[in-house]
Amino acid sequence: MSLDTAFAELTSLVQRAHTLGTVGELLGWDEQVNLPSGAAEQRAAQHAALAEAVHAAASERRIGELLVELQKPDGALSVDQQAVVAQARKDFDRATKLPAEFVREKAAQGSRGYHAWAKAKANDDFASYAPVLEKNLEFAKREAAYLGWGGREYDYMLDKHDPGLTAAAVDRLFGELKRELVPLVREITASPTAARAKTAAGKLRGFPVEGQRTFLREVTEKIGFDYGRGRIDVSLHPFCSGTGSDVRMTTRFKEDEPLDSLFSSIHETGHGLYEQGLPAAQLGTALGIHAGMAVHESQSRLWENQVARSRGFWRSFEPRFRALFPTQTAALNAEELYLAVNLVEPTLIRVDADEVTYNLHIILRFEMEKMLFTGELAVRDLPAAWREASREILGLEPANDRTGVLQDVHWSDGAFGYFPSYCLGNMLAAQLWYRAQELRPGLEAEFARGDFSWLLCWLREQVHAQGRRFDALELARRVTGAELSPKALVRYLRERYGALYLG
Amino acid sequence: MSLDTAFAELTSLVQRAHTLGTVGELLGWDEQVNLPSGAAEQRAAQHAALAEAVHAAASERRIGELLVELQKPDGALSVDQQAVVAQARKDFDRATKLPAEFVREKAAQGSRGYHAWAKAKANDDFASYAPVLEKNLEFAKREAAYLGWGGREYDYMLDKHDPGLTAAAVDRLFGELKRELVPLVREITASPTAARAKTAAGKLRGFPVEGQRTFLREVTEKIGFDYGRGRIDVSLHPFCSGTGSDVRMTTRFKEDEPLDSLFSSIHETGHGLYEQGLPAAQLGTALGIHAGMAVHESQSRLWENQVARSRGFWRSFEPRFRALFPTQTAALNAEELYLAVNLVEPTLIRVDADEVTYNLHIILRFEMEKMLFTGELAVRDLPAAWREASREILGLEPANDRTGVLQDVHWSDGAFGYFPSYCLGNMLAAQLWYRAQELRPGLEAEFARGDFSWLLCWLREQVHAQGRRFDALELARRVTGAELSPKALVRYLRERYGALYLG
Repeated sequence: MSLDTAFAELTSLVQRAHTLGTVGELLGWDEQVNLPSGAAEQRAAQHAALAEAVHAAASERRIGELLVELQKPDGALSVDQQAVVAQARKDFDRATKLPAEFVREKAAQGSRGYHAWAKAKANDDFASYAPVLEKNLEFAKREAAYLGWGGREYDYMLDKHDPGLTAAAVDRLFGELKRELVPLVREITASPTAARAKTAAGKLRGFPVEGQRTFLREVTEKIGFDYGRGRIDVSLHPFCSGTGSDVRMTTRFKEDEPLDSLFSSIHETGHGLYEQGLPAAQLGTALGIHAGMAVHESQSRLWENQVARSRGFWRSFEPRFRALFPTQTAALNAEELYLAVNLVEPTLIRVDADEVTYNLHIILRFEMEKMLFTGELAVRDLPAAWREASREILGLEPANDRTGVLQDVHWSDGAFGYFPSYCLGNMLAAQLWYRAQELRPGLEAEFARGDFSWLLCWLREQVHAQGRRFDALELARRVTGAELSPKALVRYLRERYGALYLG
Repeated sequence: MSLDTAFAELTSLVQRAHTLGTVGELLGWDEQVNLPSGAAEQRAAQHAALAEAVHAAASERRIGELLVELQKPDGALSVDQQAVVAQARKDFDRATKLPAEFVREKAAQGSRGYHAWAKAKANDDFASYAPVLEKNLEFAKREAAYLGWGGREYDYMLDKHDPGLTAAAVDRLFGELKRELVPLVREITASPTAARAKTAAGKLRGFPVEGQRTFLREVTEKIGFDYGRGRIDVSLHPFCSGTGSDVRMTTRFKEDEPLDSLFSSIHETGHGLYEQGLPAAQLGTALGIHAGMAVHESQSRLWENQVARSRGFWRSFEPRFRALFPTQTAALNAEELYLAVNLVEPTLIRVDADEVTYNLHIILRFEMEKMLFTGELAVRDLPAAWREASREILGLEPANDRTGVLQDVHWSDGAFGYFPSYCLGNMLAAQLWYRAQELRPGLEAEFARGDFSWLLCWLREQVHAQGRRFDALELARRVTGAELSPKALVRYLRERYGALYLG
């Protein structure tokens, strides 16, 4: 068999497994958006049956045979083909090297973990959750060992979400960011403008859902989301799922927090634009999947923050916003509205954080995770360590674990190594932002005219169309001409928030 | 291995295949309700990948081994277990006895067939469609032969939709119905009341969608649809899909045809109540799937026609209907509204037919199908035969094939033997109706008080909870104490429409 024939067969098998996976994603979307309240058990059975089918497709023996064929040292694959084969090998190993028994146990543990976490959080009872967390750490380490990452377990967890990342690299990046960011946040929050921003934000009340829906639809369409290949619905927590020509975002509406729905929708739109921009014919192979969570977050954050909190953006959309909500916006002048959009206010809760302090929440979690994996920190000492780190990093100490170490769901089903992506995404977003402005001076003036096409087109070409050819570090190098670093993020935060709060 | 162990394992494998099948059904529902316009190709790939997985699960070798074990002549299975095993054998044979090549070819032919039909209908060009129809007949006959029905091909097609039915039985039932119904329809349409009914129906104009939505939700909930285990959405053509605790109906709204949405929703509610009433723990086995299309239609028709076109029903809902639409209903008195609900008006188009003439449309199609399978009628002679039969049965002759033989999609992908279910369902519905009234005198008076619980409870017990234990003929015998026959249907139509139009 020729290499090209083998490659074509591999591609088709990989895409078949991926396609079945997208069916599972649709089940998940439907569960959040449509599922009748009484159908949870039936849905769980559907998930389980489908997961088995996905696993069977991903561990198909023929894939292994083709990989052996295609990975022979004398092969003459193109660079793109090599990328596809390397990713297929990684996926195949993950599907076949974990013993079925382990996978079952881990899934059961994940489900138990979620319920244990929810209960512990409700009761502010970390002690009841500690054994679960210990078990989850043990499972994570065993998983790493099965896949050949023994001794580098936390690197494995990072790589799982962001191919190519290591704890050492993240440590260095976050250390540098922390040194710059902690004092900046203190300066901003001490400024008298902080109180004015809070007052302004507090005036945004009573925005009817229908108007919010209209506005966010117009905004997301204008920045480029293709509603012929996607949709937006309502769910309890906003998310984006699907890929290619079927990308589904969700939002939620609160009458007294119109900016919540708007900005979370623009965030999901950033994710959605990325998924819509992947090469359709290669969906599911390394040429047609996203490059990892950090790059994904760079897309959502760039649109949500750099773009949608810019003066240019609001110059374009403010008139329409006021026209849709004349009475609700009457009490704010343009500057106050812009302050409300860029409110900075430290909080204990990550998901409520503004874009400046958000990064500190991530650094805190990374430091905890890292030490849990190295053994420097025992699970039982986690609450105390969290409180201390929170005071040091955020300048706030939680009064209880519910608003401290128990606040996030991620660790309850073993999703370690996920948090850093959020902050790395912010770094990459800022770096892309300055690079875009270098290439296209006057970009914000285009936004002010309601034209976002250049930026999207550039991202399509430079990021979306690349699929998983490059990891986050390599992508940063290629697209921005510089190593991934916190410099651009710090510069961006200083420029935007410094001007507003310290100017 | 004990028989019980083998039975439990068989059950779990059968249910797994069924569960995967329900995922496919959800893909289909989502396609009609939510799919972005640009996502058709991606959805087709999902359907194909999932169909492969369903087929793999349904043809799992282990099922075959267990069936051999469980079908040994000295087995001591309970009657229920025997029903499950017999159905599992049928499904397993269907999954394994058709050569993969044949299945692929037939699927491709079905897709080509649909497009050929759509084009032929648009162009009123039967000649271009004839070769496709010939090919579909050939595929149907080959399928029957593979499954051991050689020489009884049309019986096979009927059995596929309604286990246990034969062409001879349907022929006898339809012959009797036709003798009674053709003259009854002539009498009704000749009556002066027919024109009054038409005038009354024509006055129902300008019903806002929101009000229609509210009304149909209230009605369907009142008759018993459990919205905690189902939902209703909008699609181009109404349908009901899903089972157990996740039953999804659809409807469509036309401002000038409020009864269209209402009655089609009640129809789908009848299907939905059946699916919601299947035993949850046994979903997918013979104890937890419906008994066939005729029984399914008996449930939808009973609620749509016998119940929702009754005086009792309207006594209960008319006040609310008028309250929601005061100006729109002002021009009709109660008798006129009831006439509009029970409009009889022969039409060439089956899907537009009222409940009296509907049966004649089915008889016409059955006669054509039967002769195509026996060879008494050649495909090329079908249009002429259709026109002649239409004149004889419906009293109307289509001016072209678009409104004649080309009107329905079913045959284009080889769904022969499906049509009869509709009319057999009407017969069974009428039979259930009279049996219910015998057991519960004053049933309609309960409807008038808005109480539909006795009827639903009785159907739950007698029909829904039985799953596929009994075929339509046996179920009729057991539940109504009489053989399935057109007598009750003719009596019902004579009583309801005779009183209204000829009284």
